[in-house]
Amino acid sequence: MAEPATPRYTAAGVDIAANDRLIPRYRALARSAGRPEVLGGVGAFSGLFDLSAFEEPVLVASTDGVGTKLLVARRLGRLDGVGCDIVNHCINDILTAGARPLFFLDYLAGAGLGEDEKVAIVGGVAAACADGGVALLGGETADMPGLYRDGDFDLAGTIVGVVRKGEEIDGGAIRPGDALIGLPSNGLHTNGYTLARAVLRLDEAEPERLLAPDAGLGGSLADALLAPHTAYWPALQPVLSRCKGIAHITGGGIPGNVARILPDACAARLRRGAWPEPPIFERIRAAGEIGDEEMMRVFNCGLGLAVAVEASDAAGVVAALPGAAVVGEVTPRDDGPAVIVESE
Amino acid sequence: MAEPATPRYTAAGVDIAANDRLIPRYRALARSAGRPEVLGGVGAFSGLFDLSAFEEPVLVASTDGVGTKLLVARRLGRLDGVGCDIVNHCINDILTAGARPLFFLDYLAGAGLGEDEKVAIVGGVAAACADGGVALLGGETADMPGLYRDGDFDLAGTIVGVVRKGEEIDGGAIRPGDALIGLPSNGLHTNGYTLARAVLRLDEAEPERLLAPDAGLGGSLADALLAPHTAYWPALQPVLSRCKGIAHITGGGIPGNVARILPDACAARLRRGAWPEPPIFERIRAAGEIGDEEMMRVFNCGLGLAVAVEASDAAGVVAALPGAAVVGEVTPRDDGPAVIVESE
Repeated sequence: MAEPATPRYTAAGVDIAANDRLIPRYRALARSAGRPEVLGGVGAFSGLFDLSAFEEPVLVASTDGVGTKLLVARRLGRLDGVGCDIVNHCINDILTAGARPLFFLDYLAGAGLGEDEKVAIVGGVAAACADGGVALLGGETADMPGLYRDGDFDLAGTIVGVVRKGEEIDGGAIRPGDALIGLPSNGLHTNGYTLARAVLRLDEAEPERLLAPDAGLGGSLADALLAPHTAYWPALQPVLSRCKGIAHITGGGIPGNVARILPDACAARLRRGAWPEPPIFERIRAAGEIGDEEMMRVFNCGLGLAVAVEASDAAGVVAALPGAAVVGEVTPRDDGPAVIVESE
Repeated sequence: MAEPATPRYTAAGVDIAANDRLIPRYRALARSAGRPEVLGGVGAFSGLFDLSAFEEPVLVASTDGVGTKLLVARRLGRLDGVGCDIVNHCINDILTAGARPLFFLDYLAGAGLGEDEKVAIVGGVAAACADGGVALLGGETADMPGLYRDGDFDLAGTIVGVVRKGEEIDGGAIRPGDALIGLPSNGLHTNGYTLARAVLRLDEAEPERLLAPDAGLGGSLADALLAPHTAYWPALQPVLSRCKGIAHITGGGIPGNVARILPDACAARLRRGAWPEPPIFERIRAAGEIGDEEMMRVFNCGLGLAVAVEASDAAGVVAALPGAAVVGEVTPRDDGPAVIVESE
């Protein structure tokens, strides 16, 4: 916003001059995550993206937030990763429809954040956008001292992508006998942190404990908890045309999200152990004495993305996806649950 | 998200079952704000919008939040209006580029909100989308008890619209001699509430005082403060081709936002009193002993939108816009400020 400092407004808790100083820094971040289709620059009332060269475009859009992973990141002063989390989460959400990500807009709201903290957060957004070939088309930073506690903030974002009409992926072509391929997660991604914080007592924990090397985790607890959400678009793009359905394992875990792509006549059977589970999940399970069924409904438990393909296609698709494995199959739906995860 | 209640997760503060009950209610709201281009329904990982019938589309997108007007609305239990505020604010932001609004996604985050409160808030979003011919394509509701105080919430949204390539409005055609036409605001819209709350002591005020009839305001203080943000797309659409530049008067007020559409060689001179000022602004000015210059940099002071047109076009455009008036003109830029608002 192009607003000079005004003494009373500043006294009321909004430092407009500080926000003005941010504009050129945000502009530089947006330039670092550009695309040739972007017209004009960030800072006007809106962002423009030239779609005229795309044939038969169907837009695919999603809004999401980082959730309480923010509280862990803020406590540890690691602010750049959360920007990566929200961008990659959104990339995966529209990837489920077969969409190529085009542009992203961020929403950062809080109280008492310094300019450098804001730039670190939005800088993480811009870096993830640049990595994913996504334009950072705009965003909003809001200071709301009356709503957020000093130092607190929330981060959300919206992504827009495109898929050619007729090439949308919606799971409608899934049939019994299809194979389910899993792509590994690198941790919690952005779901289940409210439960993880409670059972690991993260809010009361001394940062030293969270930052201490932990052989069982292959790094510190902080490293394991703040591993950025994996973006699957780059890996999956070459085989998208062979994907009948794609489930992003977020809130709802494996059963909840795999069920979202299954036609009514289909169920899914997955084999626990067919994919690797990062040790952070066992740490959470043990600390909270959480049953495996609940673990799988709250966390991704190592399965970041589940993809349905023709059984005859499975080996070829797996070979094209680093770290992927066949994790189960589609079955006819009976009176039982839509998704069964068999224990080892 | 399709996640059944899990005892520990619920104990940790996230009532997934309650959120599940919201999904059909949100779906009904989305259906109430649809467009024929929307493919599939809300509730999947993303929303799809068929753009294939649009010729040479340039997408125009904007993200914004309601800001601390939320705190006034929550204090008075008037939750439906804030949804209208964010949708109409976003409609106006992309209107400045000449864009027709297509779809909107909302982000609602908080703690301790009941299902009916969430539906009231998102219902206001849906109603404003329906009024504006905007599809409610998706959204996110997040419960974050660790971040928000019980009963607190934040509301933001993202709009995507379209303008035909070559028809974008960016102010570049503005020349000295052009007329500036003003469209009236109905109040603060969504800017300046942090200052208004401070000088009117709204956070400490008894609701009775805010709800009492006030002859000077033509209603209660609550009515004046919570008047929903005006959407200017319906009125301006018929004359868009005659608009050289459009400034949405938001944070930064009249000087800050009019300056954003002026070419380097141009300045603007507006005449205070050429547009009506709702009495709430004088109430704020008097309560805070705020100078007129600061008032105009923080609030819209009755001017919701400023539009630059050819002088010869001014009378015709004014005649086509209910409540509009010529409020100033474009002048050559000298060493002075880009925007001067002359007192009466």
